[in-house]
Amino acid sequence: MTMQSSASRVPEAYVLTRLGNATLRDQLALELDDVWARFRAELASDLPCVNDLVDHVEHYRGKMLRPTLVFASALVCAGNSADHSAGHGETGNNGAAAGQPIQPNRPIVDAHRVLATVVEMVHMATLVHDDILDEADTRRRGVTINRLKGNEAAVMLGDYLISHAYHLCSSLNDQQFSRTVADTTNTVCEGELLQLTNRNNWLLDERTYFDIIRRKTASLCGMCCQLGAQVSGAEASTVDALAGYGEKLGVAFQIVDDVLDLTGSEQTVGKTLRSDLLKGKLTLPLIHHLSQMSSANRQQMIEQMELLVAGHEPTSTLESLAKDVATSGAIEYARQWARRLVDQAVEALDVLPASASKALLRDMAEAVIHRKL
Amino acid sequence: MTMQSSASRVPEAYVLTRLGNATLRDQLALELDDVWARFRAELASDLPCVNDLVDHVEHYRGKMLRPTLVFASALVCAGNSADHSAGHGETGNNGAAAGQPIQPNRPIVDAHRVLATVVEMVHMATLVHDDILDEADTRRRGVTINRLKGNEAAVMLGDYLISHAYHLCSSLNDQQFSRTVADTTNTVCEGELLQLTNRNNWLLDERTYFDIIRRKTASLCGMCCQLGAQVSGAEASTVDALAGYGEKLGVAFQIVDDVLDLTGSEQTVGKTLRSDLLKGKLTLPLIHHLSQMSSANRQQMIEQMELLVAGHEPTSTLESLAKDVATSGAIEYARQWARRLVDQAVEALDVLPASASKALLRDMAEAVIHRKL
Repeated sequence: MTMQSSASRVPEAYVLTRLGNATLRDQLALELDDVWARFRAELASDLPCVNDLVDHVEHYRGKMLRPTLVFASALVCAGNSADHSAGHGETGNNGAAAGQPIQPNRPIVDAHRVLATVVEMVHMATLVHDDILDEADTRRRGVTINRLKGNEAAVMLGDYLISHAYHLCSSLNDQQFSRTVADTTNTVCEGELLQLTNRNNWLLDERTYFDIIRRKTASLCGMCCQLGAQVSGAEASTVDALAGYGEKLGVAFQIVDDVLDLTGSEQTVGKTLRSDLLKGKLTLPLIHHLSQMSSANRQQMIEQMELLVAGHEPTSTLESLAKDVATSGAIEYARQWARRLVDQAVEALDVLPASASKALLRDMAEAVIHRKL
Repeated sequence: MTMQSSASRVPEAYVLTRLGNATLRDQLALELDDVWARFRAELASDLPCVNDLVDHVEHYRGKMLRPTLVFASALVCAGNSADHSAGHGETGNNGAAAGQPIQPNRPIVDAHRVLATVVEMVHMATLVHDDILDEADTRRRGVTINRLKGNEAAVMLGDYLISHAYHLCSSLNDQQFSRTVADTTNTVCEGELLQLTNRNNWLLDERTYFDIIRRKTASLCGMCCQLGAQVSGAEASTVDALAGYGEKLGVAFQIVDDVLDLTGSEQTVGKTLRSDLLKGKLTLPLIHHLSQMSSANRQQMIEQMELLVAGHEPTSTLESLAKDVATSGAIEYARQWARRLVDQAVEALDVLPASASKALLRDMAEAVIHRKL
């Protein structure tokens, strides 16, 4: 396979940041295409109207961070090198899916692929329902489902995605995987509900902010690494280390996401921005910015935000407000937090021997800081 | 236990229709209370804001038809009589939950109780999300979550419920139950999406209508009976017979639900009515009513419905339109359909020996016709 042919498959984030080495990128590109094929196959319905709606989700396909976390964690536990020939192509011979005891030092098996598809489906469901909560119009440069087909269709499509995620997961013989996935989605929902309850809470503190993003974002990333390692038969200590890596990466990822919501341009990021401000969601930069103000200025900014949320202020106010935060030290403060968390994520990998896949995990954590979308 | 003490526990539908015999009602009342306790325990969170929201679901507790279908199917397969002393109280000694092979002729075991809780949780999730789709304000005499806390909270609460339903289901050792539940929720979502796609489709035919309600309502009722029988170790033919009973009952139940949406009073039914008409959802009475009209009158009625859906007509128009349908033969036509389906449901029970629980299943099917809420 030439780099050119593979480049078309390699998700944007990897092309942009050139993670890992070329052979490993090619292998992952193949695995991610396989995940997407399984994704489409699982969602196929006898009803054309359902398939039409599912087709829109195609536009939501992004960097596939979560499936990549599953595979990279699998490979690193299998002590797999980038050019491990058995990494792809092996089918049917699958530990967990066949209910056989999982053997250590095995490369990517079908159970990894099934679980990688499950986590991507769960993630897609959260995107579809998040866009309803945020009244977002744009996602990954495409029109959102809620905008295109209405909130009702978005509610049901999200439900259809989550139902199929559990359905696919239950095709594995080991009930423990279903239990782990459902346990994590419980936590994700708690995070979303905690965030919702704190809308327009202008006194939101950092502790609660971190609790929200740990639950709604980091828990799923941590689970991806945990499952990848467990299916590869890793020792408990290795599983914990990778789960810790995934969770730290997830928290950092969300902080950068919140920074981009304030500083990014829709052209670059490709989704509706400033929605946090518009929805009265305080994020780390805003929380810090407010904490640095005189109480008089803070009160003034809070009143302005209240008018914004109520829709009594023009977009120009929104942009100038975002600019104020962006030009203050608050963005730098948030980025430093992300930097610290990425360092901790990389440290968590110390227990693992050097390998191309370990280098990839390190590069993926670094890429979180530098990503522009 | 005195009838008085038990009466307070017996869900309204059973008090109203006096199903089964008193001893069986008492046993079921205890089991349904146990289901509700498990329901609350499963949903308990360390976040007060989540528990506050879940408390609202308490108001949604209704006749608990679906858990009752699980238990009645379990009892009928166990050849259980109403006063079977082992029916309640036995805990921990649980076939499927303990992963032991299921033994035939056993009364209600923990796996039945877990699955009864799961199906009620799935049902609650669909109610919460349905109320968003219908913009309903009232449900079981209480204010709907979407009305009280907004659509965002309703979306996430529904997701929280469905996630916990799968989480609880995966506590059973047998992955097959998770697979069956997820397979059914896939079908329920398809039914909802098919219905959504056909909003304002004034040419909707009976075949499509029945396809919609079979998927969105009947599939879950059929599954309740199937699971109840499977956990009791019934033969495949008995499982199929009970699944068929549940599905026929479910279709009849939805037809009567659609009739009540047109003919019922909110005081009696206790939920927002006429929403089908307002949302451009054609149901069996309307479909038949339109089919009986001259093309000129049909066109006139369609134009009126289009104005209603667009909100360009007062409530009085809505009520008079509903009255027109109610006073036509269309309601009788729909009720005859429900009658036929209930008869078929009862016939499906012929394979089973006579027992108090078989009589209960028969009475439950009959109650579908006569229910006022």
